[in-house]
Amino acid sequence: MKIAIIGGTGDQGLGLALRFVKAGEDIIIGSRDAKKAENAVDMVKEMLEDGEVSNIHGSTNVDAAKEGDIILLTVPLQAQIVTLRSIKEYIGDKIVIDATVPLDGCLGGRPTRYVDVWQGSAAERTAELLENTDAKVVSAFNNISAASLLNIKDDVDCDCLVSSDDEKARKEVMALAEKIPNVRSLDCGPLENARIVEKITPLLINLNIRNKIKLAGLRITGL
Amino acid sequence: MKIAIIGGTGDQGLGLALRFVKAGEDIIIGSRDAKKAENAVDMVKEMLEDGEVSNIHGSTNVDAAKEGDIILLTVPLQAQIVTLRSIKEYIGDKIVIDATVPLDGCLGGRPTRYVDVWQGSAAERTAELLENTDAKVVSAFNNISAASLLNIKDDVDCDCLVSSDDEKARKEVMALAEKIPNVRSLDCGPLENARIVEKITPLLINLNIRNKIKLAGLRITGL
Repeated sequence: MKIAIIGGTGDQGLGLALRFVKAGEDIIIGSRDAKKAENAVDMVKEMLEDGEVSNIHGSTNVDAAKEGDIILLTVPLQAQIVTLRSIKEYIGDKIVIDATVPLDGCLGGRPTRYVDVWQGSAAERTAELLENTDAKVVSAFNNISAASLLNIKDDVDCDCLVSSDDEKARKEVMALAEKIPNVRSLDCGPLENARIVEKITPLLINLNIRNKIKLAGLRITGL
Repeated sequence: MKIAIIGGTGDQGLGLALRFVKAGEDIIIGSRDAKKAENAVDMVKEMLEDGEVSNIHGSTNVDAAKEGDIILLTVPLQAQIVTLRSIKEYIGDKIVIDATVPLDGCLGGRPTRYVDVWQGSAAERTAELLENTDAKVVSAFNNISAASLLNIKDDVDCDCLVSSDDEKARKEVMALAEKIPNVRSLDCGPLENARIVEKITPLLINLNIRNKIKLAGLRITGL
């Protein structure tokens, strides 16, 4: 199964690419600019051992969306709509994983604050844009920091909270997330719950800043 | 130091009373009805060993607010304003800990959803009501479930996320929360961050329901 990481040249896209490539998944890093995508692929290759890197290549977002079996959107909020529009016609009935976080930092404000988007969450914004398609929108990976994904020497110490109105797609993404060692997926039910999950990220950023660390994550206890 | 638990006859008030009494703190359980408060005190005493229960009594909310050194508000959202108004003149410059969660369940909706209050968070709603007083409003205990507090045979497995615009009060409440064994307090900075912290509770309720458990909590990792 090929995962197309759309907007995959940013830190979160790179970090997810790194972890999935290492886990043996086939990865396509997409970017508006194919050259940038290739540079990102080189960066991933540099961070891994030689034997681990056969399964990744770069291309434009459009080609990545065409080729990938699963679409993983890792763009900042301000690029979410324009990026989705550019690949919409190639998505078909694929799973679209939205990892967007509505941070005020994306609008020139503070990354420790969220902004309320009209649809309730960034993931529901994606769902609205794709509402007349067969795409299955899943919210995931919002709380797993790029820093912790890129810190390849250590396992990621964070739960992955997964929401979707499509139960089968939700389960599939939960299984995918758990290919990253030490990540535990939690079924958070319908997509509307991304409203809460996405808002936890600015709190984690706040705790990072406040404690001069970079790897804040969260674990649900009592399960 | 005496802690007045205002509206302390509900599950969360009872649970916090139980844990704090056990930790040796002086507790006043407040209720609109002094008799109800006394009944709650009896319930706490029944749940503890004889040697542990010298330091608790019940009274009206007004008397509790007068007598307590710290005010701890544990009422459902719909009782928050009316309860605060009833004790406002007795608060003075005391710390007011707000544990209110803006659950849609308080309005006849689902406890797995939050409602947006105008002030941004229930804690900021308390702060607005007290804005011409010297009270120091602190948001805490929102994510620690009543079930887990009342489950006295086990330690609480949850972080306590604490926000306040008054740094000294914030630190004081952080120290207070850590009197409950195994609870770790985290400094979340200004009161506005209660907007995020409070919203995590309906997610925990969702995970409780979804997994048929009662004790979901959260831990921040990477610290």
